[in-house]
Amino acid sequence: MKAVVWHGRKDVRVEEVPEPPPPPPGQVQVEVAWCGICGTDLHEYLGGPLYIPADAPHPLTGAQAPVILGHELSGRVIAVGDGVEGFEIGDRIAACPIIGCGECRWCKSGFMGQCENVAFLGISWHGGGFAEKMNLYAYQAYHLPDTVSDEVGALLEPFAATVRMVAQGEVGPDDNVAIVGAGPIGLMALMAARIAGAKRVVSLEIADRRIELAKQCGATAVINPSAEDPFQRAEELTAGEGFDVVLECVGQPDTGLLAGRLTRTRGRLMVMGVFEEPAPLDFTDLVYGEKTVMGSMGGYGLFDEAIAMMADERFRGDLLITGRIKLDDILEKGFRPLIEEKAKHVKILVSPR
Amino acid sequence: MKAVVWHGRKDVRVEEVPEPPPPPPGQVQVEVAWCGICGTDLHEYLGGPLYIPADAPHPLTGAQAPVILGHELSGRVIAVGDGVEGFEIGDRIAACPIIGCGECRWCKSGFMGQCENVAFLGISWHGGGFAEKMNLYAYQAYHLPDTVSDEVGALLEPFAATVRMVAQGEVGPDDNVAIVGAGPIGLMALMAARIAGAKRVVSLEIADRRIELAKQCGATAVINPSAEDPFQRAEELTAGEGFDVVLECVGQPDTGLLAGRLTRTRGRLMVMGVFEEPAPLDFTDLVYGEKTVMGSMGGYGLFDEAIAMMADERFRGDLLITGRIKLDDILEKGFRPLIEEKAKHVKILVSPR
Repeated sequence: MKAVVWHGRKDVRVEEVPEPPPPPPGQVQVEVAWCGICGTDLHEYLGGPLYIPADAPHPLTGAQAPVILGHELSGRVIAVGDGVEGFEIGDRIAACPIIGCGECRWCKSGFMGQCENVAFLGISWHGGGFAEKMNLYAYQAYHLPDTVSDEVGALLEPFAATVRMVAQGEVGPDDNVAIVGAGPIGLMALMAARIAGAKRVVSLEIADRRIELAKQCGATAVINPSAEDPFQRAEELTAGEGFDVVLECVGQPDTGLLAGRLTRTRGRLMVMGVFEEPAPLDFTDLVYGEKTVMGSMGGYGLFDEAIAMMADERFRGDLLITGRIKLDDILEKGFRPLIEEKAKHVKILVSPR
Repeated sequence: MKAVVWHGRKDVRVEEVPEPPPPPPGQVQVEVAWCGICGTDLHEYLGGPLYIPADAPHPLTGAQAPVILGHELSGRVIAVGDGVEGFEIGDRIAACPIIGCGECRWCKSGFMGQCENVAFLGISWHGGGFAEKMNLYAYQAYHLPDTVSDEVGALLEPFAATVRMVAQGEVGPDDNVAIVGAGPIGLMALMAARIAGAKRVVSLEIADRRIELAKQCGATAVINPSAEDPFQRAEELTAGEGFDVVLECVGQPDTGLLAGRLTRTRGRLMVMGVFEEPAPLDFTDLVYGEKTVMGSMGGYGLFDEAIAMMADERFRGDLLITGRIKLDDILEKGFRPLIEEKAKHVKILVSPR
């Protein structure tokens, strides 16, 4: 079958690979419908290996490069391993990429995303979503209802991550929420915060195309910090209340600092942006305002809630999917535009057929 | 009467000032027994005005430089203003320096330390503890029991601040706690964490004298990060569990970064150190570990709890008070050694008589 295989930095190939074996006990085999290209795929392509096990087999899964990429996938169950309950051939599903050991204190306390030996589909696993078929654990598969199409199902993984960030930030109906960045994660976080019932949801973004998208996605307002004073605008837009919760969805050297300072006294800054290196935080402002900063990683535990939220009219899959391409074209029509013309795209989905 | 007056940067004078007027309604007049020298006093002396209102009257209190310094005080009530209940002449008290407006959302929700126009005794008030007498609001005065001496009472304010940090960090009997720094705040935080029942309390400190003090104050162990790998030592000292709560009590450019990385997955970093400027934080580590960072400011709301904790044998006022001086000597025997021979001292108390 055809698959997109990471061999090394800037060496990703579309090539023929063996089909996966019949699913082992506890696993299902899935025929992939759509798989989204994630920033992590681009990071592994441009600067990896970051999380791909290149020098030694992954301690939990035994996977090692070359590996098939792709972890934001929807599809159809085509085989069911021994001992699997709740899935039948033909079931439509989307996947949670997280694989945990099931034994460590984090797996045992409901935080599999923090497993001491965590592995991920499409990164440290024997298969990925940029392929015709793959095996995965049944606990990673979530049933898609008729209200969620295969295309939208491929958005589940990143959307669930933003749902979890919003939940951990305890966003509620009294909250003014600011979202730093209107890339794929920022826009999904915007939808998640709106559906969670936030009073006002204000995006911060500097790219014209993304400012427009944030408005279409329902932002109460958009602040362009390169063109206006974000602190003054925050005062105006929230009637002096400030931002109760700020969601950092960028990960640039100065966005953490801005996000922290934009958080009101006793407010919460949630961070999901991946920073290449340590970045400044105004600790003194944190102390005087008794602010809280918390990292949020992945959507583990909230995939069913995220699926339910996808049925809300404020979830706009149509605005998030800006490209549908074939597997053969992934480098030229997927990776390249997402790297070179970043602000023009949100999510590009890949079909293996 | 004699008082220590801040006139400007590096211009602090011991001089004669008028006695305070009889206490206005809601206030009491106190004869100061002891007042501790705080890092804030030194910062105002060396680099102020930081919080002293120099150019305009303070919006809440109307105070303006020159101001009498000193906010860590104990003393005896010598006059009671109209409308004050619960205080009589002769009562022994220690003071909370925080003055709030009583009207803003923070004052109304129990967070007077975050008052939008917060003022402080000895900084933005008509009086301070480095003087024979001063007025303060009755709500700022806390009765001292016989078990707490006047000297130890002068430690209440900084100790309460560490009690609050430990409480906000939710330190409990299952927690391994690391304390970055063994200066006055670090040592008091160490005592507060021990009395709160933490399983292990490990200090991190590089100065020999302070390493010794941390051990005397009951640290389970002390890590010297300039001489050993703090991460490896953390593993050994906590039997692989890591630090559930880390208390940052330094505020240097690299201590926030170290403190964050030393916090375990899903753990809590509490920050009390005052940083001169934004400092690096490993946001990606924060995200992957879903760690929480929170600032903690002052002890408002927990002064009575702190007084009760001072009766515990693990509170060691004798180790904290390293100097007792007269008001006339404050610059030569107080400020100078605390600036020039920092690691030799913990808390120097000043008597106005």
